[in-house]
Amino acid sequence: MFSAGTTKIVLVVEYNGGRYHGFQWQTNVPTIQGELEEAIAKLTREKRRVIAASRTDTGVHAKGQVVSFWTASNLPSKTWVKALNYYLPSDIVVKQAFKGAEDFNVRRDAVSREYDYCIWNSGVKSVFAKGLAYFVSKPLNLSAMQEACQVLKGKHDFASFATFLGKMLHTVRTVYEAKIRKKGELVIFHIVADSFLPHQVRNTVGVLIRLGLGKIGIADFRQIMEARTWGLAGPTAPAYGLYLTKINYSRPFIETSI
Amino acid sequence: MFSAGTTKIVLVVEYNGGRYHGFQWQTNVPTIQGELEEAIAKLTREKRRVIAASRTDTGVHAKGQVVSFWTASNLPSKTWVKALNYYLPSDIVVKQAFKGAEDFNVRRDAVSREYDYCIWNSGVKSVFAKGLAYFVSKPLNLSAMQEACQVLKGKHDFASFATFLGKMLHTVRTVYEAKIRKKGELVIFHIVADSFLPHQVRNTVGVLIRLGLGKIGIADFRQIMEARTWGLAGPTAPAYGLYLTKINYSRPFIETSI
Repeated sequence: MFSAGTTKIVLVVEYNGGRYHGFQWQTNVPTIQGELEEAIAKLTREKRRVIAASRTDTGVHAKGQVVSFWTASNLPSKTWVKALNYYLPSDIVVKQAFKGAEDFNVRRDAVSREYDYCIWNSGVKSVFAKGLAYFVSKPLNLSAMQEACQVLKGKHDFASFATFLGKMLHTVRTVYEAKIRKKGELVIFHIVADSFLPHQVRNTVGVLIRLGLGKIGIADFRQIMEARTWGLAGPTAPAYGLYLTKINYSRPFIETSI
Repeated sequence: MFSAGTTKIVLVVEYNGGRYHGFQWQTNVPTIQGELEEAIAKLTREKRRVIAASRTDTGVHAKGQVVSFWTASNLPSKTWVKALNYYLPSDIVVKQAFKGAEDFNVRRDAVSREYDYCIWNSGVKSVFAKGLAYFVSKPLNLSAMQEACQVLKGKHDFASFATFLGKMLHTVRTVYEAKIRKKGELVIFHIVADSFLPHQVRNTVGVLIRLGLGKIGIADFRQIMEARTWGLAGPTAPAYGLYLTKINYSRPFIETSI
């Protein structure tokens, strides 16, 4: 039973998704939503439903997930952070807490989502990148991948980049930013869009890697994109390289004064 | 039984020390040396003793440990890397393999060792720094810590920075480099010395943190150093923040042509 609260709390949450069956609550398996709701229940003795700006899949990490819930409690924001972190497992951490406007919706009001995908591109594995970056041993042609990033930018039909569309009819998305950056042996693909199709980022990475390894050329990349046929991009890069880094909002939705 | 080999192999090794009781072989507990010797035995069917440039303690990580062993095998260096990584557990990785000169000794010929100590200095923990950086929630005064780094540099008696000296009479060491750098919320203490006393880096970090938190001043830091009494520095910072990053040698000891 989910009771009504009077205050909307907005949290910025970081998690290592490795142990979890994604964000969304499911029976009998650990989920981020399940852990957050349990921590809130332990702290407030209220059973609350938590909603997320972007529901991450099994194994996907987050550095800046945004979630909200209603509460009758009037704890100050610093206490929300400390107390929830006390109850949460060590692979989920609340970084910030705010009081949100009553009509603010973390999902509907989000204007864009930012994701990073980390690739460990080196002849040998890194023990410290284990579970945190996808290992590609052969050298990637980053300038070819960068060129493809330019193609991704803008408003396009991204159907080819979805794993499965089902009844999803609307496959046009706007990519505001797409780029590759290199930090030592780490290659990071950064993408910002209004929203994403199922597995879009991981399938984009899969085809970018094919391009980076010279298995396809930039013309093939364009063809895949223009074909608008689901499953053409990919293969789906593994979940553990993917990070939801930031959610952007159009309005100053948050009252920090709690 | 350790049989003689005809070729000296030198490896650069990276490991996450979290699961290990340090580098040095011990009965019935996992050690880095034990795992390396087991992988070599599986590959060559030879029982070989591995020696390290710097024996790391329980829980300490390495990005650039250097080890060597003798072998009768004449595998090419690329094969040593690939084959040993095949047999090693996923938290130990061989990054490079070389043929070493017969009279080259990885420990005796090392002129200096480089270590990094990682501190996660933020109001909230990071799930990604777990087991990889020491969490200090209160803000550190980095310029005070930087000033202390200047004091550490040079040839000094570092007795105060050792946990236990035992019969160790010679406590003079030369610190070639000591500095603090900041990467976002990560504070990294970097130190290079000819060699180190037991727990010297972690005790140095302990006292630097005390200084950074304002619990002691720079004059106290100097006094601790000048007292030359073991155990005065510290507390010993946790092992999981410490990384052996590099071993420096005076001569071009390595023949890469295998």
